[in-house]
Amino acid sequence: MKCLVTGGAGFIGSTLVDRLLHEGFEVVAYDNLSTGFPQFVESARASGRFRFVQGDLLDPPALTEAMKDCAIVYHLAANADIRKGTAQPRRDLDQNTIGTFNVLEAMRANGCSQIAFASSSAVYGNAVQIPTPEDVAMPVQISLYGASKLAGEGLVSAYCEAFGFKGWIFRFVSVLGERYSHGHVFDFVKQLRSDPTRMRVLGDGNQKKSYMHVYDCVDAIRLAVEKAESPCSIFNLGVENYVTVKQSIGWITGRMQLAPRLEFTGGERGWIGDAPFVWLDPGRILALGWQPKFTIEQSVVRTVDWLRDNDWAFARA
Amino acid sequence: MKCLVTGGAGFIGSTLVDRLLHEGFEVVAYDNLSTGFPQFVESARASGRFRFVQGDLLDPPALTEAMKDCAIVYHLAANADIRKGTAQPRRDLDQNTIGTFNVLEAMRANGCSQIAFASSSAVYGNAVQIPTPEDVAMPVQISLYGASKLAGEGLVSAYCEAFGFKGWIFRFVSVLGERYSHGHVFDFVKQLRSDPTRMRVLGDGNQKKSYMHVYDCVDAIRLAVEKAESPCSIFNLGVENYVTVKQSIGWITGRMQLAPRLEFTGGERGWIGDAPFVWLDPGRILALGWQPKFTIEQSVVRTVDWLRDNDWAFARA
Repeated sequence: MKCLVTGGAGFIGSTLVDRLLHEGFEVVAYDNLSTGFPQFVESARASGRFRFVQGDLLDPPALTEAMKDCAIVYHLAANADIRKGTAQPRRDLDQNTIGTFNVLEAMRANGCSQIAFASSSAVYGNAVQIPTPEDVAMPVQISLYGASKLAGEGLVSAYCEAFGFKGWIFRFVSVLGERYSHGHVFDFVKQLRSDPTRMRVLGDGNQKKSYMHVYDCVDAIRLAVEKAESPCSIFNLGVENYVTVKQSIGWITGRMQLAPRLEFTGGERGWIGDAPFVWLDPGRILALGWQPKFTIEQSVVRTVDWLRDNDWAFARA
Repeated sequence: MKCLVTGGAGFIGSTLVDRLLHEGFEVVAYDNLSTGFPQFVESARASGRFRFVQGDLLDPPALTEAMKDCAIVYHLAANADIRKGTAQPRRDLDQNTIGTFNVLEAMRANGCSQIAFASSSAVYGNAVQIPTPEDVAMPVQISLYGASKLAGEGLVSAYCEAFGFKGWIFRFVSVLGERYSHGHVFDFVKQLRSDPTRMRVLGDGNQKKSYMHVYDCVDAIRLAVEKAESPCSIFNLGVENYVTVKQSIGWITGRMQLAPRLEFTGGERGWIGDAPFVWLDPGRILALGWQPKFTIEQSVVRTVDWLRDNDWAFARA
């Protein structure tokens, strides 16, 4: 069986590519390399069952061509930088909403009808219930990123109803681990590399967030795709606890054996559209048999180690 | 104060235009006349405070120009034909999602920060709670139309958070009354005009739907805009009861003094993506002081009368 992974040269996408190859699938990775790295698919290139296509979601003919003969699409390509939403509002619309529409239309053109879609905890806005279950009261969007991911979810589920697609929607917490190349741990390590004596922290450091390791994330996606029966299923993906930004900083600086002076920008939110408390209820995916193998602390530490060993990842950022 | 009404030559939009002029506002109606009618703004043209601009939501420069000096936008322009979603999936994305994004960006360019947005009961999908409150459990989208309206809502609320906009989101049931020019009453009357002896009915006729009169709808919009305080408020708009399609047919045929043979296409849904039971809880807007003046039966009968007296409305359909 042949699979297409959009964002297949990205952090999570390339990890999923490796997993799918390991399981014996044929895999096409489709990526515009705007945030993905060619290095992330180097190991995949050794496989005769792998093909890399450099292309953009906003290029429907290239996308349709790359998808030829694929039975399932893992749609992970996205603009994942929540913070830049206010500076470039068009980007979330283009890359996430219109990009997802283009994926779905390319699927129709190819007779491909199975899609696993990477959504986000951001769709819950300022969640009114924590830990947040999938069927929480209808949220109000607070970020352009969250709005674009919810728009993508709506498209996926409407295509399931209208065209008989089968869909799996995953609402991720922040993902950490090997190949992690943007986000708060990345920013902190990057700062400490240039000046180990001080570190600027967005917000007051008391933001509470849940995280998960990328291997656990990929485990959950594959499990759900194999086991979830309904025409369109929705899963929170995250571990059963959370940490504060200050705790996370303690593990990062501890691992780097540094004691920087912390400079907090203040306020309960890191940026406009940031949710100060993100903790999802993973009950639904746990009930399917998933168990995370890494704690949040282990995930943070492994991320720091990977960034230490792969400093080329800082070159572009 | 100057207002822009997108879809200002449409059924609800033109009725709102007349209301705003009556209240003393300056009004710009922006409409591409794809479903609106020039006849609907004939009375408005008599006012020195009215200007009509024929333009499309997908033409940002024209939209931005038309919005000059406006303090508030009533964004009613949309592709409102739910049933055609599967035949033309791009239309809901373009007209509703991207169109709403273009309105919001034109507002930023003009320094205009107040938006009233016409959403729909369709965002509730197959509602898990009936009558449906605004904070029902997160729904799964079943139509491209509903998905595009939810995407529009997400954009509006994210702009409230990111750019300090004030937003009012209205989830309409089906609206009836003078200038009604598409939907089930229109389709039924049109059929009976060409053959009074028989009528084809989508589904089994037992679909349960709530409706409201366009004057009540416009009352509610104006009341909420004047009174609702929060940065982004969401209101269901609909009456406190519902009828079956068969009841509605009884009122239509009774008013037309016809007794056609009814031919049901069968099934509980009228079309793919149709929700067989739509009944919203209007408690929030009632608490603000709104009271509908028309029953559903009165709304249906007035619609039939208007279509009888304005048969030019059938020319284009």
